[in-house]
Amino acid sequence: MRPSGRNLSEMRPISIETGITKHAEGSCLIRMGDTHVLCTATIEDRAPPFLKGTGLGWVTAEYGMLPRATNSRNRREAAAGKQSGRTQEIQRLIGRALRAGVDRVALGERQIVVDCDVIQADGGTRCASITGGWVALRLAVNKLMKAGLVTSDPLVDHVAAVSCGIYAGQPVLDLDYAEDSEAGTDGNFILTGRGRLVEVQMSAEGATFSRDEMGKLLDLAEAGIVTLVAAQKAAV
Amino acid sequence: MRPSGRNLSEMRPISIETGITKHAEGSCLIRMGDTHVLCTATIEDRAPPFLKGTGLGWVTAEYGMLPRATNSRNRREAAAGKQSGRTQEIQRLIGRALRAGVDRVALGERQIVVDCDVIQADGGTRCASITGGWVALRLAVNKLMKAGLVTSDPLVDHVAAVSCGIYAGQPVLDLDYAEDSEAGTDGNFILTGRGRLVEVQMSAEGATFSRDEMGKLLDLAEAGIVTLVAAQKAAV
Amino acid sequence: MRPSGRNLSEMRPISIETGITKHAEGSCLIRMGDTHVLCTATIEDRAPPFLKGTGLGWVTAEYGMLPRATNSRNRREAAAGKQSGRTQEIQRLIGRALRAGVDRVALGERQIVVDCDVIQADGGTRCASITGGWVALRLAVNKLMKAGLVTSDPLVDHVAAVSCGIYAGQPVLDLDYAEDSEAGTDGNFILTGRGRLVEVQMSAEGATFSRDEMGKLLDLAEAGIVTLVAAQKAAV
Amino acid sequence: MRPSGRNLSEMRPISIETGITKHAEGSCLIRMGDTHVLCTATIEDRAPPFLKGTGLGWVTAEYGMLPRATNSRNRREAAAGKQSGRTQEIQRLIGRALRAGVDRVALGERQIVVDCDVIQADGGTRCASITGGWVALRLAVNKLMKAGLVTSDPLVDHVAAVSCGIYAGQPVLDLDYAEDSEAGTDGNFILTGRGRLVEVQMSAEGATFSRDEMGKLLDLAEAGIVTLVAAQKAAV
Amino acid sequence: MRPSGRNLSEMRPISIETGITKHAEGSCLIRMGDTHVLCTATIEDRAPPFLKGTGLGWVTAEYGMLPRATNSRNRREAAAGKQSGRTQEIQRLIGRALRAGVDRVALGERQIVVDCDVIQADGGTRCASITGGWVALRLAVNKLMKAGLVTSDPLVDHVAAVSCGIYAGQPVLDLDYAEDSEAGTDGNFILTGRGRLVEVQMSAEGATFSRDEMGKLLDLAEAGIVTLVAAQKAAV
Amino acid sequence: MRPSGRNLSEMRPISIETGITKHAEGSCLIRMGDTHVLCTATIEDRAPPFLKGTGLGWVTAEYGMLPRATNSRNRREAAAGKQSGRTQEIQRLIGRALRAGVDRVALGERQIVVDCDVIQADGGTRCASITGGWVALRLAVNKLMKAGLVTSDPLVDHVAAVSCGIYAGQPVLDLDYAEDSEAGTDGNFILTGRGRLVEVQMSAEGATFSRDEMGKLLDLAEAGIVTLVAAQKAAV
Repeated sequence: MRPSGRNLSEMRPISIETGITKHAEGSCLIRMGDTHVLCTATIEDRAPPFLKGTGLGWVTAEYGMLPRATNSRNRREAAAGKQSGRTQEIQRLIGRALRAGVDRVALGERQIVVDCDVIQADGGTRCASITGGWVALRLAVNKLMKAGLVTSDPLVDHVAAVSCGIYAGQPVLDLDYAEDSEAGTDGNFILTGRGRLVEVQMSAEGATFSRDEMGKLLDLAEAGIVTLVAAQKAAV
Repeated sequence: MRPSGRNLSEMRPISIETGITKHAEGSCLIRMGDTHVLCTATIEDRAPPFLKGTGLGWVTAEYGMLPRATNSRNRREAAAGKQSGRTQEIQRLIGRALRAGVDRVALGERQIVVDCDVIQADGGTRCASITGGWVALRLAVNKLMKAGLVTSDPLVDHVAAVSCGIYAGQPVLDLDYAEDSEAGTDGNFILTGRGRLVEVQMSAEGATFSRDEMGKLLDLAEAGIVTLVAAQKAAV
Repeated sequence: MRPSGRNLSEMRPISIETGITKHAEGSCLIRMGDTHVLCTATIEDRAPPFLKGTGLGWVTAEYGMLPRATNSRNRREAAAGKQSGRTQEIQRLIGRALRAGVDRVALGERQIVVDCDVIQADGGTRCASITGGWVALRLAVNKLMKAGLVTSDPLVDHVAAVSCGIYAGQPVLDLDYAEDSEAGTDGNFILTGRGRLVEVQMSAEGATFSRDEMGKLLDLAEAGIVTLVAAQKAAV
Repeated sequence: MRPSGRNLSEMRPISIETGITKHAEGSCLIRMGDTHVLCTATIEDRAPPFLKGTGLGWVTAEYGMLPRATNSRNRREAAAGKQSGRTQEIQRLIGRALRAGVDRVALGERQIVVDCDVIQADGGTRCASITGGWVALRLAVNKLMKAGLVTSDPLVDHVAAVSCGIYAGQPVLDLDYAEDSEAGTDGNFILTGRGRLVEVQMSAEGATFSRDEMGKLLDLAEAGIVTLVAAQKAAV
Repeated sequence: MRPSGRNLSEMRPISIETGITKHAEGSCLIRMGDTHVLCTATIEDRAPPFLKGTGLGWVTAEYGMLPRATNSRNRREAAAGKQSGRTQEIQRLIGRALRAGVDRVALGERQIVVDCDVIQADGGTRCASITGGWVALRLAVNKLMKAGLVTSDPLVDHVAAVSCGIYAGQPVLDLDYAEDSEAGTDGNFILTGRGRLVEVQMSAEGATFSRDEMGKLLDLAEAGIVTLVAAQKAAV
Repeated sequence: MRPSGRNLSEMRPISIETGITKHAEGSCLIRMGDTHVLCTATIEDRAPPFLKGTGLGWVTAEYGMLPRATNSRNRREAAAGKQSGRTQEIQRLIGRALRAGVDRVALGERQIVVDCDVIQADGGTRCASITGGWVALRLAVNKLMKAGLVTSDPLVDHVAAVSCGIYAGQPVLDLDYAEDSEAGTDGNFILTGRGRLVEVQMSAEGATFSRDEMGKLLDLAEAGIVTLVAAQKAAV
């Protein structure tokens, strides 16, 4: 029934390749099927101005999509002179999600910037960015720890994300683009390694939904996150 | 226990005053306690270019905050030369929410722009914008119907929104600013008049949350929406 | 003869309602007929950089118009990415006018920002902004004085403004939009409470004018300012 | 008493050199003492969109200042990414002033753009731009007439401008920078060749003014305009 | 003597991997040592407006660098709100170079956009972009030919580029970042497959140079281009 | 054969008029035939931030073109809100070229900004800007030396520039616009007074070129630079 022939609760193949660029403190290329995102983490000595003197650290994210990551070419945001509302919404979400797994006291007054750049898109880019971004963050934090710059581990738990939706009347896990563009309702679910909820965003796209449907999507998401966290563990 | 002395499930006083400006096709000033938002609806003869020739209508929204709507003055976005990521995220949400209650075939190939401008802010401005924006939209659509420009009612249901959160360990309804800035988890819940879900956005701000807590917040929201829809009905 | 049925020297009804927002140090909603402007004054501890170390204070103004304050919707300046030339010209005028009533030594090295946001427009918005802006400024300065932060009153006189023009060949006072858009010549007159001139801007819009006509408009303006200053006194 | 040693009613030496660039339809370099402005007029076949189908023409102006036209270098507006409020205010004024001398029916549905670029500034740049801009406009219109593209002369009268102010307590004509920066009140007076008023802008800069002072400045301006119009006549 | 231990006339290892994204009409990942650039070519049905009705085609290029492609993180240009002068200079160069190998009549009135995005930088990114961009262009043109949309081959020759410079007093081929940042003179040489010159850019960075040195760098470049063209041939 | 009737190796008449504005530390108006550029040099006490504490000076350049410097009017860059890629490329080139003649240690930790504004364009504006910019720079540096602010001369050599190209199959010197727009290949050659090369930029515009042709253009350029340097010497 799904365009890809997957079962309702079947995720796309996941691969996380680390050490993808020689410059970044942490990096990986995450592939969720045909969605490919390059994630890098950069450690900066200084926290943003609003944290000056607080001893607290910060994790932030930026998101971009190469112009031809999609089926038709999108205008380059740098040429357009601004980031779209969609881009800003996504990068705010990634940053917020990653911070939910961070002990900002343990991190100390520094900033880690996670860049997520979509090389090829087939639905679920924001979720792949969060899951892959966490791996880049983990690798960068490992460097901080190895160098003795932090004493206790600032990463308190995994953070991963997956999308689910009602496609052709059925709840399905890990929407690809063909499903995403047709789904009546879809949602992004961000959870920790221990299964705690970090962020839930469900949205009616054409058809409103019930609490019962919401529960079924959440069931799917919880199962999917287990797989994603396992892939993160294997990668780092 | 709440800074305002309200019960856990008690909303702030709601008032919706219509006909607030003489120019707009629909308008109201909605007050949720000390949060005051001026909402206007403008009917435009043309739909956006991507709908040309489809016969479908569109509803979109813009959001703004007067510089001194908040406790300290914010820089005017027009002077800054761009809308913040927050503003764009909110206005995309308002537009998406309102469209969930619209039959775009019945509306016909035209656009209605809903402007939500916050005169005074005390938490929950995006929810008040949706609830008040729906009233402005309703009034504008009434004009279309009275003028015989649409034949069946394009508004298929009410849409209203309320925030809930975990404050001091307790689920509370309709957060004001004092609560919002301290809440461990908060969420925005958008529902229709029939109680169907349109959008759920829950976010851990410092503390992750469980499915059980999510359910309790949703219970509160469902009750709150009933009150809001009643206020909408009284206003139009 | 006037579209509104007013006499040539008759102003529109004036109302000035203070304390309109709970956050601002001073605020009012001024109504000149159907022109409604929300004015707030914000006290900032620091003067602009070019005054650093001079001991002198500064008063500045910003002006905006809600998108649907007018008969047809105007594009939101924040969305357009810049303030129009008209907006900048108006806000520079408001700031200059208000500073003419301020003893900047007595104010001390701080800044007061007056925001004038037009809720509904029917001609004369810049004049209403100046007259209402002065009231907001007065209320904010009163707070400074009550708190003992200034020792002598930095407001040396009232400042108020009114427009006059040649409409259908006759000099008329306080143009509304219907008159303004047809007037051959119009002018904005800013005066102090003592009747001294602060700024005169007369402009031929289609028909040039004579010194004699200029004198008649100034006569009307002087009378109008007396009424406006009385309304300011009643409000504060 | 004046820094330059001039009499109170003495203007600076005026020179208007035409044909300054080979490309423009009309051009001149106007020198008012040490204020030098290069003015060009460009004829465009199309009027702006808002005039489409009306048969009416348009005259507009743009103003700029070379970065080192002044005593200390100003940031290049093209590098800053926007025109300042001052620039926009000035170019709107120039365009409005020149249009006052134009019969837009006779001009026909085309546009003339007058560019005024300040090469060297010593006060009064907006007035010199108007006086010189009129000469460039006259030359461009002459080309239209010679080519038989317009049948009756669209320029119905001269337009020229001069500044006056209260300097050291005395009314003086044609302020240079040293006077302008010290004047308590100054004004810009735009008149036609027949002595009709086009625009009057008087502004208190530190000291308010009386009707009597206003009259004296206008007397000076009327005399100055006679000299400027004579210089325009000699140039074309 | 070279930081990398290479001989003076030794290039870095080259690899060109095609078919890197499923969406683009042509794509490759080119690696010149540690410089990695992702190149895609997009076919657009319409040529730019200035070619309308001419029957001529166009090839243009855009260039970007991921924020952490370099040793320290660069600000994302989309976030900064504009492309730097360097970026614009490079993308203009790439487009100009690729057009030198194109028969624009044979291409017909359509546009091909070549996007070059630097994933990892170690000097010579503009040269790698041209060499890889040509491969993406070749693959896209092949699709046009296979679909019968063009009848004769619009690509008349290969275009490839390499940098050379005077490093530590010696002419060297294919500068990496360590050399580039120290070179007294460096140059970019763009040639066709037949060895004709397309563009030569030599620049003194600290030390001026002689015609004799210029000749030696050109000798090196000619040899390097032979290797690059062979790699292009192997890839397509 | 040349549109202007010049011999293949004949330059246009050169004139360099100094002291063109009273405010700048150095200034000139350079005329290469009908290409006229106003150049000013401004001394700033501070070097750019990246040089803080190094004791090194900096020379930078900005370039602009008046809207009607060309045959048809170009949009004013300040109004467009950004400098074009062409403008940025040119001003980066001018700055780089001038720095090649500067001893930055001798200059000391200050900056000189050279502004080149094209009053009238007929090809070769970037070359005229460099040649004239050097004169303005020389005059400004003379002021520094006279004031004893630098002890040894920071200008180690002349820098001048000329364009050459293949026009109608022949190598020609100093292209004017009619030639430039038709040339198959053109180049800009920047040399010092001693004949050392500073920058060579050759570009195929429609036809690729050979090493032999490159040599012939360089021969022409070397001869042209001798004339330009003589004109610089005569001017200062």
